[in-house]
Amino acid sequence: MRLTPPTLSKLALSALLACAVAPLALATTPPAKTRSTQEILDASQPSDWRTLDPARTLYMELASGRVIIELAPDFAPAHAANITTLAHEGYWNGLAIIRSQDNFVVQWGDPNADDAAKKKPMGTAKPKLPAEFERTSKGLAFRALPDTDGWAPQAGFVDGFPVGRDPTAGRAWLAHCYGAVGAGRNNDEDSSTGAELYVVTGQSPRQLDRNITTVGRVVKGMELLSALPRGTGPLGFYEKPEQYVGIQAIRLAQDVPAAERTPLQVLRTDTALFDELVEARRNRRDDFYKRPAGHINVCNVPLPTRAPPAG
Amino acid sequence: MRLTPPTLSKLALSALLACAVAPLALATTPPAKTRSTQEILDASQPSDWRTLDPARTLYMELASGRVIIELAPDFAPAHAANITTLAHEGYWNGLAIIRSQDNFVVQWGDPNADDAAKKKPMGTAKPKLPAEFERTSKGLAFRALPDTDGWAPQAGFVDGFPVGRDPTAGRAWLAHCYGAVGAGRNNDEDSSTGAELYVVTGQSPRQLDRNITTVGRVVKGMELLSALPRGTGPLGFYEKPEQYVGIQAIRLAQDVPAAERTPLQVLRTDTALFDELVEARRNRRDDFYKRPAGHINVCNVPLPTRAPPAG
Repeated sequence: MRLTPPTLSKLALSALLACAVAPLALATTPPAKTRSTQEILDASQPSDWRTLDPARTLYMELASGRVIIELAPDFAPAHAANITTLAHEGYWNGLAIIRSQDNFVVQWGDPNADDAAKKKPMGTAKPKLPAEFERTSKGLAFRALPDTDGWAPQAGFVDGFPVGRDPTAGRAWLAHCYGAVGAGRNNDEDSSTGAELYVVTGQSPRQLDRNITTVGRVVKGMELLSALPRGTGPLGFYEKPEQYVGIQAIRLAQDVPAAERTPLQVLRTDTALFDELVEARRNRRDDFYKRPAGHINVCNVPLPTRAPPAG
Repeated sequence: MRLTPPTLSKLALSALLACAVAPLALATTPPAKTRSTQEILDASQPSDWRTLDPARTLYMELASGRVIIELAPDFAPAHAANITTLAHEGYWNGLAIIRSQDNFVVQWGDPNADDAAKKKPMGTAKPKLPAEFERTSKGLAFRALPDTDGWAPQAGFVDGFPVGRDPTAGRAWLAHCYGAVGAGRNNDEDSSTGAELYVVTGQSPRQLDRNITTVGRVVKGMELLSALPRGTGPLGFYEKPEQYVGIQAIRLAQDVPAAERTPLQVLRTDTALFDELVEARRNRRDDFYKRPAGHINVCNVPLPTRAPPAG
C-alpha cells in the first residue's frame, strides 16, 4: 500500500513533476499551458542525452551501494588525472569516509593521512599539483542561465556541470552546488592532491568557489553519502574509527568489467530541451504554484539521469 | 585520539572558525586583520542573545534525541496558533516521519491522514486556516543584507528568521532556507492546517517562497532529521510503515516541566555584532580563503545558538 495522502504528496509532486512553462505573468493572467518537466523529458530525443564516459567516471563502492562520480578534466585536468591514477591503482580501496558535517560536506580519504609512518602510499600519483580553482572561459560551451545569483557575474552550465563565469575577466569555474566534489587542501593553494575528497551535502557553500579545486560531481547515489550519520567531533569528523564508513573500492568505470558497470546517461545541458527544462523550473505553472518565481539558481536545476533506453 | 590531519581539517576550520573581516579588496591588498567569527562570538554581550520563548518553541522528541523548533507567529499567526493547539493536545504523539526526499525535505504527520476512518482527530485545532504566505513588511524590524540573491528584491533577517522582502510592494515572507519548517498543503492555498509539516534538508528551494506557509525553523537538532535514511518510494516517501520514524511527542516547551526543558539562546540578528558576523562571512579573510566572495546569501549565514551562560 503506498501512502501518499494528497496533502502530503502535492508539495512534492509539484516540485518534481508538474511544471508547466509560461512567461512570468500576473497571478490574474491565465498561464499559457505548456509542457511539464515530465512531458519535456518524455519528449527528449536520444541526442538530448549523453552516456557517461567510463574514462572519467568513478564508482565508489560502499556497503550500501554504488556512488557514481563524473570527473571534470576540462576544469581540473591535473586533479582529474591524479584521481584517475589513484583509482586505477586502488588507492582508496579499504580507506574510509571520515567526516559528515551537517549542511556542509562529507569527506573521505586516508584516516592516517597525517601520520607519515602509517599513511597509505599514493603509488605513482603525483604528490603535488597546481591549484585548479578556475580556468579561461575561452573554448567552453557555456550555456548561461537568464538569472544571476550574486556569487558570480554569470551562472550556467558546461557539459552538465554548474558553472560560474566572469565574462569581463574571461574566467570560469565550477560552482559548489549540492553534489559537487572537491579536493581538500591545506592553506597553500597547491596543497591538494585529489587523495582527499569531499562532496557538498547541504546549502551550496559558494564561498568555496575559486578557493579550492572542484574536481567533479556526484551524478548518482548522493543519498548514500548525504544521509550518513553526522560526525559528533569538531567539524563533523567521526570521533572513533569504528564510526568510519568503509570504502570497499573507488574504481574508474573503464577498469570495471563491462557487465559490472552501471549504464547511465545524463541529460545534455547544451540543448533547446534543457533550456525548456530550465524555464519550467524558473516559472512553475502547475496547480500548486500560485506565484512562479521567475528565477532559478544554478544550484536548483535538476540534472536528470537515466538508464540508456533499450535497443 | 582526534583525527584531523591538516589537509582534512583546514577546509572546515576556515569555514567554521577563521573568518577575519575586511572590506572587499584586491587580492594584492593585504587584508586588514579583523575579528574572526569565533572572536566575534566570544566578544558578544548578554544583550546580543535572546532566550527562546517557551510559548513558541516546540520540542520534537525522537528516539535519537530532541529537535527544537521556533515558531514564527509574526509571519504565520493562524498556523502558529493551530500548531500550538495541536502540540498542547498531543496530536503528533505516536505519529511519524513518513518522508525523506534527498536534497529537499523531511516530512511528518499522520500516516493515515488520507483515510477518513483511520485518521487521527485534530482535537480543538481548526480544520481550516487562511494561507499565510507573506505579510506586510510594515512593523517588521527587517535587517537587510547588503547582497541580493535573485529570489527576492531584498534579503535579510527578522528576529532570527531569514526573510525576503519587496519594498515596493511592502511585503515580506520567510525564506525557504535549510531548516525552514513549512505546512504541507494541497493545491488550494488555504488547505494547510499545520498538522502536516516539513523541514528543508537540502539546497534552499526558494521557489516555494510565497507559495506555501512557512511556520518556523529548526534551531537545534537538524542532524536528527537531515541524516534520516531517504525514502525509496516516489518523492522520498517511506514505502513501508516499519520504515517510519516514530515521533514520541511534539510538545510546546511551556508545557514541559522546567527541569526537562533545553535552555537555549539564539544570537539576535538586529545588532551590530550580527552585522559584523555577516561581514565576516561575506569576506573571509583567513589563511585559507584566497578570494573572499564579497557576497553572502541569506541561506548561508550561520545562526548561532548557545546554552545560557551560568549565573
